[in-house]
Formats: sequence, structure tokens, C-alpha cells
Amino acid sequence: MTRKSVRDVLRLTAVDLSALDPAGRPIGPKTKKDAAEDLLATGAELEDLQEALYAEDARAVLLVLQGMDTSGKGGTIRHVLGLVNPQGVHIASFKKPTRAEARHHFLWRVRKVLPEPGRIGVFDRSHYEDVLVPKVEGLRTAAELRARYREINEFEHELAEAGVAVLKCFLHISPEVQRERLLARLDDPRKHWKYNPADIDARSKWSKYQQAYTAALKNCSATPWYAVPADRKWYRNWAVSRLLLETMRELDPKFPPPAYDIAAEQARLRTDDPLR
Amino acid sequence: MTRKSVRDVLRLTAVDLSALDPAGRPIGPKTKKDAAEDLLATGAELEDLQEALYAEDARAVLLVLQGMDTSGKGGTIRHVLGLVNPQGVHIASFKKPTRAEARHHFLWRVRKVLPEPGRIGVFDRSHYEDVLVPKVEGLRTAAELRARYREINEFEHELAEAGVAVLKCFLHISPEVQRERLLARLDDPRKHWKYNPADIDARSKWSKYQQAYTAALKNCSATPWYAVPADRKWYRNWAVSRLLLETMRELDPKFPPPAYDIAAEQARLRTDDPLR
Repeated sequence: MTRKSVRDVLRLTAVDLSALDPAGRPIGPKTKKDAAEDLLATGAELEDLQEALYAEDARAVLLVLQGMDTSGKGGTIRHVLGLVNPQGVHIASFKKPTRAEARHHFLWRVRKVLPEPGRIGVFDRSHYEDVLVPKVEGLRTAAELRARYREINEFEHELAEAGVAVLKCFLHISPEVQRERLLARLDDPRKHWKYNPADIDARSKWSKYQQAYTAALKNCSATPWYAVPADRKWYRNWAVSRLLLETMRELDPKFPPPAYDIAAEQARLRTDDPLR
Repeated sequence: MTRKSVRDVLRLTAVDLSALDPAGRPIGPKTKKDAAEDLLATGAELEDLQEALYAEDARAVLLVLQGMDTSGKGGTIRHVLGLVNPQGVHIASFKKPTRAEARHHFLWRVRKVLPEPGRIGVFDRSHYEDVLVPKVEGLRTAAELRARYREINEFEHELAEAGVAVLKCFLHISPEVQRERLLARLDDPRKHWKYNPADIDARSKWSKYQQAYTAALKNCSATPWYAVPADRKWYRNWAVSRLLLETMRELDPKFPPPAYDIAAEQARLRTDDPLR
């Protein structure tokens, strides 16, 4: 396909969100049709890699999805993770911390739902919520936020040490496309439940959220962030599927060799009589 | 399609496993091709029902898969649960209890992984392992096993009371087909990890396992069991997909009405300026 990897192109270096086009297609297919074909091929390869990861039973992947409301975290999960065996996927969603969660260290609830070895874990929102909302709402001091950024870097480093490949995607949408998507939810009785008037609060603080994202992405970049243009759903799905594929190719999981004598087992099976 | 439901036909009444044909097709499509078409249509309807169940956020489904090794619990999960949104699925596997699990009541580890409201939970093996293996291996007395059957009935009754629709499927295969599938695993280096010589122990006790299944299915039938002929993978997938569909149709989950004023929200969105 392309010489450059999707990771090379989408990797956030200088974090300047205003310079990124949410409707951009900086690499890969230009049309929905081409992207759909590509997604099928990617799915087949992902399924194979996932099976090897599962069989290997040692390392794991953690896909972190962050983005404003309607940026498509759920849609990405449905379309990208829907490509692989559900048995190897573990999805965790992070809402506003419960009272019990709020009494603990902010990473407590995160550590509880890390993927087991062999799995692809997915975070629908994540520990980053705990440096975004507090910054926008002024719930933490600058020093407290700095401490959290540091703890997140340490946490993600720990994960890497433990064999968990962390893939962090920021789904980048424009406020205009968010408006369209929110209005579409209001137009469809099957989508009314997805609409929450409180979501508009975050929308009305759009610039503050972009600043909070900029600070978080910049301060927690020891593990790289990828900026996924998300105004086009098909491009977003394509890009995340490719980022996941490149991550898993790099892991290169291996089917473990048998710990038994194949010929002996074949002989045993061919001659046995289980109903004797 | 058919007047009779798949549940009517596959429901186990008099539990006589020897009278059931593992290669049978007692209802539904006769060919793999017809089954594949049917599976697609079922998938679309399942996806809609699942979304409503998720939106409703109150009740849940629990699909329990039991069967001898290679009966296709994993394949069923991949092909049937692969039809729906992975975000709404929660899969739990039960292996030999760990030391910590063995120190607790046998239902302890089961209760920990029940599906949350709105989810389709899947048990790949289940609490039934704790009445099968102990009976075959003589690890529990008859009185202890009777107590466990009773506790399982109570537990499943509790689940129903809590709004969890429990769908129990026994994947029924023949020892000949198991032999073929185990040999196929030995023939494919990508499948060697799935083969465990210890599995042959259970195979060599085939009749004892059928007796243990018979006792468990008979004694724990307050919540019905469905016997799924599993010698043909396509029929097994079709049958479980239809059993799940009928279960979810009966639940008939409803999208909740909006708890906000739609017109007011539309007006607000159409005129707002999030970047102001």
C-alpha cells in the first residue's frame, strides 16, 4: 500500500490540535469504498494475529480511545473490534467516577480492568478523563495535574514493561460535525438514549477541552499518541484498524510449540475407543 | 421460516442423550448455504435487539455453553457473538478452579463475572463444570452433588428474578467427530496450542461424562436446557444464533423514552457557538 506507516503519519509530535484537520485523510484510501475493502483485509490479518496473541498467552494490547462526545469511540469499537474474535477482546468504559471510585487513587479503577495476557483490551475513555475534566472544571490545581501526568507516564511505562502494548488514539472531530451527529441522535428515537443534555456542557467548553487535551497529550507523550481524523467515520475506522494492525505486527506474537509428542498423540487418538 | 420455535424443538425434556443425534438437523436449514444466509439475517436482528437491551440498561442475557472438548464453544462465540456489537458482550471462561477459587463456594467465581445490565454474557463452560468433573472423578459424594444441583437451581432462579434471561446450551458431539477435530488440531501448527494431552482423559471417560451430563441436565432443569447437535459446525452456529434470537425477542427490550425536551435541545444545538 504505502511506504510510510500509518503510525508514522498520524503520530502526534508537536501537539497543535488547531493545525490538524478533523476531515483530513493524510494517508491511505481516499474513498469509503476503498477503505471498506482495506478494512476486510485488515480484519483477516488482525484475526490471525489476535489468535497468535491469545495462544501465546503472555503479552497484551491496550487500545485507548479518547475524544469528544460523538467522536466515534463506540463506532470504532463496533467496526474495528467487530473484526476479531470477541473472546480475545476485553472492553472497559470509563464514565464519571462513582463515589467509591472517587475515594481511591484515580488509577485504581483503571488497573482493575487491564486486559489479561493474550487479550486486546479497549478503553472507551480512560485514565485521561481524570486529567481532562479536572482541568476544564478547575477541580485540581496545576501541581496536582502535573503529578497526575507524571503518574500516567509511569503507569504506561509499567504496562510496557509488563508486555502490554499501549496504543493511544485521539479521535479528532470538529464542532460542526459534532452538531450534526447530536442532531441526528435527536432525530432518531432509537438514538435518544445516547443523547444527554449534559453532553452539551462539554460542547460549550470546546476550546477549554481542546486546551486540556493539548496539555494531556503533550505531557503524557512518553507512550505516543496518534491523532485520528474522525469527521469521516469510514476514515476513522480505517485509521484505527491500521494503527492496531501495525501495533500487532510489531508485537509479532508466535504460536507456542507443542509441549507434547505429536506422533504419539496421533497414534493414541487413531486407535482409542472412548465408548469401551 | 418454521411455525415451531427452535426452542420448542431443541428443548431437553426427558434427558436421554443417547437418543439425540449429534449430526441431526431437527429444525431449520438443511444446507450450510441456507444456514449462512439465515445467520446474516439473524445477526442483523440480534444487533438491533442488543442495542435496545443496552439502551434499556436493566436486564441481561446469559448464554451458558457446555459440551465436551471440541464441541465448539469457542467457535460458537466467534461466529454467533461475532454478529453483535462487542461492547455489549461479556465473555467469561471457566477452567479448572484455581487454588483461590477452590477455597470458596463453587458459585463464588461465577457470581463475580455475571453480565452487567444491558449486556449479553457468555459462559464458556460454567458452574456446571463443578457438578460434572467431581461426579466423573468421584471427588464429591452423591449427597454433595445433590446439594450443588439444588444450589444451581436456586442460583439460576435468582438470576431470572434479577432480570437475567439464562439460555443454557449443551453442544452435543459424537466421539468420532471429536476424534477428527483433535486430529485436525495436531495437523495444524497454528492449532497445536489448542491441543492438550490431558483432554484425552475426559475423552477416555466419554460414557462417564455423558452420565454426568445426564444427571446435571436432569437435576438442573428448572431453567431449561437446549441440546444443540454439534457435529456440523454450521448447524450448531445456526441453532445457537436462533436460540439467542428467540430469547431476546421474548425479552423484547425497549429503547427508553428521552428524559429531556427534544425540541429545546434541537433549538439549543442549532444556534450554539461552541468556539465562542
